[in-house]
Amino acid sequence: MDNEKERLPVLRLTEKGRSSIEDVVAREFPLTIILNNEELVTLLCSPTNLKYLAIGFLFSEGLLKSKEKIKKIIVDNRSGVVRIETEEELAPNVLFKRLITSGCGRGASFYSAADAQNQAKVESKIELSIHEVFDLVAEFQHRSQIYRATGGVHSAALCDTKSILVFSEDIGRHNAIDKILGACILNDIATDNHIIITSGRISSEILLKVAKRNIPMIISKSAPTNLGVRLANDLGITLIGFVRGRRMNVYTHNWRIVT
Amino acid sequence: MDNEKERLPVLRLTEKGRSSIEDVVAREFPLTIILNNEELVTLLCSPTNLKYLAIGFLFSEGLLKSKEKIKKIIVDNRSGVVRIETEEELAPNVLFKRLITSGCGRGASFYSAADAQNQAKVESKIELSIHEVFDLVAEFQHRSQIYRATGGVHSAALCDTKSILVFSEDIGRHNAIDKILGACILNDIATDNHIIITSGRISSEILLKVAKRNIPMIISKSAPTNLGVRLANDLGITLIGFVRGRRMNVYTHNWRIVT
Repeated sequence: MDNEKERLPVLRLTEKGRSSIEDVVAREFPLTIILNNEELVTLLCSPTNLKYLAIGFLFSEGLLKSKEKIKKIIVDNRSGVVRIETEEELAPNVLFKRLITSGCGRGASFYSAADAQNQAKVESKIELSIHEVFDLVAEFQHRSQIYRATGGVHSAALCDTKSILVFSEDIGRHNAIDKILGACILNDIATDNHIIITSGRISSEILLKVAKRNIPMIISKSAPTNLGVRLANDLGITLIGFVRGRRMNVYTHNWRIVT
Repeated sequence: MDNEKERLPVLRLTEKGRSSIEDVVAREFPLTIILNNEELVTLLCSPTNLKYLAIGFLFSEGLLKSKEKIKKIIVDNRSGVVRIETEEELAPNVLFKRLITSGCGRGASFYSAADAQNQAKVESKIELSIHEVFDLVAEFQHRSQIYRATGGVHSAALCDTKSILVFSEDIGRHNAIDKILGACILNDIATDNHIIITSGRISSEILLKVAKRNIPMIISKSAPTNLGVRLANDLGITLIGFVRGRRMNVYTHNWRIVT
C-alpha cells in the first residue's frame, strides 16, 4: 500500500504557531497504455492495480470488447507502461474519435442520446432493502477510512446484496471504477445483478461505464449530475445518491429498493 | 444561475419511511471547442461562462499563447459550441499530442520533469499573513455555499491578499480553474502576484495551469498529490492544503506565509 503514498515534510500553521510535521500525500503516477503497439493515452493514477486499470479503461471506452481475444498484458511498473495485445479488430476511426475526447471531458458522442440508445438497457430483478444499502455503505466507508490516510483519493467497490467483493482506490474517480471493472473482467467476476459503490460524483461517464458492464445499481455518498440521472433512467439503472447518516436519495428505478 | 441546476423528483428514504421530494442537481453540459475550424475537444462542464472556459482551456493546454492574435470568439449556448479563430501559428503535431492526452488523465509529457523545466519559475515576493489566508478561505467558503445547492460542483477563485476578485464554479475542478484563468485573460485581470483558491485536489495538472499564468500561490481545503507538491516546489509556488478550521498545511515555499 505504501506505493500509493509518499511522506513529505510540511509546515503546520495555526494561530498559535508553526510546527514541522510529516504529512502523507497520495502519489500521482503517469500510466501509458499501449494497445497493439499504438500509444493510446496516459492516465494519471494511483500506482496500484495498473493491469486492472488499463483493462477497465479499454473496456469502458469500448476499445476492447472481448477478454478472450487478449493475447498479452505486460505491465512495466517502473516505466509506467502497460502493453496490451489483442486479436480483436480495432476500428482506427473509432479509436481516434474516442481518444480526442478522452479523459475528464469526454466527447459528446459518448453520452449523447444516440449513444445511450445504442447502449443496451440493464435488465435485472435484483432488490435491496434499505438496511442492506446502509450496511453496504457502512462497510464501504470503513474500508475507505482504512486506506484513506491522505484525504486525496476516491474509492469504488463491487458488491452483492450482502457485502463488498472487490474494492479499489485511486486519485481519480474514473480510475477507481475502471480498476474494479478491470478486475472483474480479468478474474471472471460477474457484474450482472451486482452493485457499484463510489465515493465520487455520478456523472454521465460514470453511468455509462456501469451500464456497459450490465450493472443495475450504483450508490454514492455524493451527488449525481442531471445527465447521470437521465442516463440511469433511460438505461434501467437504479441511481442512489447522498447516502449520509441514515438516509438516501433514490433518483431512478426506485422499485429495486424495498422496505 | 438556474442554468447550472435542474430540479428533479427524487424518493427520499429513511428507516422511518419514504417521501417524494424535489432535489436540485448540477447540470452537465457538453461544450465542443473548435479552433480555426478544427474540432479539438468536448468538455463536460457546467453551462456558464463558456467563453472563459474555452479560452482558459486553450491557454492552459498551451494551444494559445497570445490574446492579441485572437480574431473571433463565437459562443453558441444552445448547441454547446465555442468557435475561436486565431492568427497564432498552431503546430499541428503539438496539437495532436496534447489532445491525445487531454482530460482527467493528461499526458506524461505534460508534467514530466522536462516539461516542468521548460516552465518558467514563478518569481513573486507576495506575502500573506496566516489571518489573511483564513479570511480569504472563509470568504471563498461563503461564496461557495451560496452557489452550491447541489453538492456537486467545484469552486475556484482568484484573489489578491485581501479579497476575491473572480469566482467560478463548475462540475469539474479543472474547468472551474480554467474559467477563472479565461476571465483573467479576456478581461485583462493580472494574475502575477495573485492567489488561486480551489475546492479541489491539487494535482500536477492544476499546478501547471497556475504556473503558466505566473501565479505564486495556490490554496485548497483538499489534499495535494506528491507530483503537485514536487512541481510547486520546483516552480517557486507556495502550495497550501487542508485549510480546515483554523489550521493549514504549507507544503512548499512557506516563506510567503508570515505571522
